Amino acid sequence: MTLTIDINCDVGEGFGNYIIGNDAEILRHVSSANIACGFHAGDPAIMRKTIRLCMENQVAIGAHPGLPDIAGFGRRVMNVTPSEIYDIVIYQLGALYAFVKAAGGSIQHVKPHGALYHMAENDILVATSIVKAVATFDRTLAVYGLSGGRMLQAADEANLIGFHEAFADRAYRLDGSLVPRSDVGSVIVDLNNISRQVISMVKDQSLLDVNGQRVKLAVDTICVHSDTAGAPDIAKIVRQTIQSLGVEVASPKKLSRLMNRNL
Amino acid sequence: MTLTIDINCDVGEGFGNYIIGNDAEILRHVSSANIACGFHAGDPAIMRKTIRLCMENQVAIGAHPGLPDIAGFGRRVMNVTPSEIYDIVIYQLGALYAFVKAAGGSIQHVKPHGALYHMAENDILVATSIVKAVATFDRTLAVYGLSGGRMLQAADEANLIGFHEAFADRAYRLDGSLVPRSDVGSVIVDLNNISRQVISMVKDQSLLDVNGQRVKLAVDTICVHSDTAGAPDIAKIVRQTIQSLGVEVASPKKLSRLMNRNL
Amino acid sequence: MTLTIDINCDVGEGFGNYIIGNDAEILRHVSSANIACGFHAGDPAIMRKTIRLCMENQVAIGAHPGLPDIAGFGRRVMNVTPSEIYDIVIYQLGALYAFVKAAGGSIQHVKPHGALYHMAENDILVATSIVKAVATFDRTLAVYGLSGGRMLQAADEANLIGFHEAFADRAYRLDGSLVPRSDVGSVIVDLNNISRQVISMVKDQSLLDVNGQRVKLAVDTICVHSDTAGAPDIAKIVRQTIQSLGVEVASPKKLSRLMNRNL
Amino acid sequence: MTLTIDINCDVGEGFGNYIIGNDAEILRHVSSANIACGFHAGDPAIMRKTIRLCMENQVAIGAHPGLPDIAGFGRRVMNVTPSEIYDIVIYQLGALYAFVKAAGGSIQHVKPHGALYHMAENDILVATSIVKAVATFDRTLAVYGLSGGRMLQAADEANLIGFHEAFADRAYRLDGSLVPRSDVGSVIVDLNNISRQVISMVKDQSLLDVNGQRVKLAVDTICVHSDTAGAPDIAKIVRQTIQSLGVEVASPKKLSRLMNRNL
Repeated sequence: MTLTIDINCDVGEGFGNYIIGNDAEILRHVSSANIACGFHAGDPAIMRKTIRLCMENQVAIGAHPGLPDIAGFGRRVMNVTPSEIYDIVIYQLGALYAFVKAAGGSIQHVKPHGALYHMAENDILVATSIVKAVATFDRTLAVYGLSGGRMLQAADEANLIGFHEAFADRAYRLDGSLVPRSDVGSVIVDLNNISRQVISMVKDQSLLDVNGQRVKLAVDTICVHSDTAGAPDIAKIVRQTIQSLGVEVASPKKLSRLMNRNL
Repeated sequence: MTLTIDINCDVGEGFGNYIIGNDAEILRHVSSANIACGFHAGDPAIMRKTIRLCMENQVAIGAHPGLPDIAGFGRRVMNVTPSEIYDIVIYQLGALYAFVKAAGGSIQHVKPHGALYHMAENDILVATSIVKAVATFDRTLAVYGLSGGRMLQAADEANLIGFHEAFADRAYRLDGSLVPRSDVGSVIVDLNNISRQVISMVKDQSLLDVNGQRVKLAVDTICVHSDTAGAPDIAKIVRQTIQSLGVEVASPKKLSRLMNRNL
Repeated sequence: MTLTIDINCDVGEGFGNYIIGNDAEILRHVSSANIACGFHAGDPAIMRKTIRLCMENQVAIGAHPGLPDIAGFGRRVMNVTPSEIYDIVIYQLGALYAFVKAAGGSIQHVKPHGALYHMAENDILVATSIVKAVATFDRTLAVYGLSGGRMLQAADEANLIGFHEAFADRAYRLDGSLVPRSDVGSVIVDLNNISRQVISMVKDQSLLDVNGQRVKLAVDTICVHSDTAGAPDIAKIVRQTIQSLGVEVASPKKLSRLMNRNL
Repeated sequence: MTLTIDINCDVGEGFGNYIIGNDAEILRHVSSANIACGFHAGDPAIMRKTIRLCMENQVAIGAHPGLPDIAGFGRRVMNVTPSEIYDIVIYQLGALYAFVKAAGGSIQHVKPHGALYHMAENDILVATSIVKAVATFDRTLAVYGLSGGRMLQAADEANLIGFHEAFADRAYRLDGSLVPRSDVGSVIVDLNNISRQVISMVKDQSLLDVNGQRVKLAVDTICVHSDTAGAPDIAKIVRQTIQSLGVEVASPKKLSRLMNRNL
């Protein structure tokens, strides 16, 4: 059993007059946060405020770059070239960096958002382009990706530190992929079942798929969603479940120190 | 007479499929460039390419932040708060920084664009907000502003280095302000007259106003426009005129070294 | 005392993934709705759904054109030319028209949004540009504007029908203008006080200003806000108050029929 | 041999400060124009001016709806739902309609732009969604689509009039599809070869594919591009070639009158 594990969530996903999620509440329960950078959500003012909120809660800060599509919340796959992907990741990383620097903090990781996340898992070229941008900007940044997936494969090949992500409230298939949201039963809503999945992930680095078969899964960080109903409650239960196993909830930065991984 | 003077121009002002100006040509003649950062013009790919072009031409790189208004090219005054101004400057500075860092270069200055430039000259609160963003992000960055104007006053109060900007092809009024573009004779098109104004600026740190009266004017950097017809020719004549006086054309970074100003 | 009066509210002000206000609830209480057209808020899908909601509730449909500024929710004054104002109103009117036509309905009025509303009240040129767009597109459309203000003056001069708007939950000054939102006491939150102001408006076409002095005010339509806490409750109390006076709540279209105004 | 044929081109594809193509020149040679509606290019002011230009040149006006992607000029495939496609076409149709109505003109046709055009040819669901929007808004509008393709199949099924489009300057494959732009020889630049292809299209409703084999092809309208170098020259040569065959260059509206097609 691992001694520490990270909980991450997406935050700062409002835009202008629009507010979404309950960041102030959820940031009390997680150890790392993925901050929208203005392409799929987030704007300069929200980025600044969200960074402060993260720092007040001692939550590690990550960039959450997305496709340039506010209207679609970055969830619509777009046919962008590897070069375009590299460019939009660099741009968003820099924008977030400036606010983090101004606040006296530091970025610790990068996790692509929505369609960009899925495109990276489906196409190694996309994953490689994202990783190339991260590595060019700052080689010490960690990369979050689907456990066992292409994003982490690309990070590994570039000698970046990668963190295997699993989802507390999503059903899995036998091959370790997620049951699509369009399928019945794709989202686990019962808090007991979420708790059970978390125990399995943390204790055994595995979980039961939709058909009850065991799937091995490396788990460095568990994602909780910030924009679903009861999100703070889910985050809280995930944290309590992990701690009840005697495992510490900690961000990759701390994790890697503990593990003596060489950043 | 000064021993060196800077020539600056706005570049990278295309967007997506749209090209504007002849950056490749004009960058052969200037010593510093103001690169659009995606709010009034410019996009991630264009920023990356423009930075490379600057570095190939050994042109000093500056950020050219603007109001969030592609449709209006950042030329429409918007009623933004000091806080919003701070945020949009931080954001754009960071975005440009990431590309410059990726290219192995450095940013040397910041010059606000269009309406933001004029808003800063008309309202010290705007100037102060811009300067605060620059100082918070990187105190070693220089600030370009209208010679004798509020932007440089704000920079001075914040102990940032400021460069007095004058326009080679614009008519001035007796108080040192520009004749508005809407007035007849506001833009000097004759190359000989441009050359004459440059000589006066460089030799005497002064020029003749629209009525032929002498106006004292500190001049550290001369702006040439990149999007007017014959822009490269104007840039070339400005450079040649300066050099014919035995004065070196050099960016603030070099200038300040020469002057032993302490950055 | 008038026999009918309109209640209007702004709706369809979400964007993409973002939801704002409780349109379904509030549309049960009002007689006319101002639908965002995609420039300050609203998107094609939201426009289509909001129109259907209006038609299901037999609420008269109005266009609610705004400045091109999603990030600022159309609340930031922008220095746009009369020609630009004409163009953005025509564009938004047409976009809404297409959805209304597709749904088998019709547009009955136009009310500018946010900064555009205030700009029109402060500058007759802005008001005239909006009215010119409305009149050119469809002369039978009504125009909503601040009671006694420039928008209605412009409508009157163009022979468009204008409806005098008053606010149930806003404090007024003696000259009939609104106490700015930044002032203490600018917004009336107590439902009894709102009800009292509505009674005064409807019975006497007047109200008491912040200092308790009586202000005469023509009132054809009362605005309730959709995005404040308890908005549906306010809408409901306004409607009930009006009806308790024996006055019918009805949209301009119905109103004008009753009054034999010639649309 | 047909007695009339249409020449169409895309126009009004600037944005804000950005100008692209030479609309004033090219509109002297074509019989119908596809006007950008603000999603991939074009803005309210440009739409208004382009409509006037079309009317001055007696060029039939068409809507040219695109994906919501100014930065990508509507050329990046996006994973939008059929419902989203319906909505964005309705919206853009309405916006253009308002300007056309204000100018005293009428829209005669609709041609999807860029990625939306190709998505429609590759996926009947996309084509059907576009056609549904057109039919719902105005059943008398014609639809332009790739000769023999899915767009026209969908138009046909909805009983809309469809016009088979062919390209004067593009190489074809044996199945009637275009050689992708990424392939060598995909674009025909030699004016004599363009002229030869036009003759073949008009006289024989066929052309020679890249390997010199004959491909049958219904041709109602020939597309010339407005943004390539020498575009007006190409448009002129296409028109002269057609007229030299004794065939009239005329828009679908006129065409359909001649053919007694029942709109």
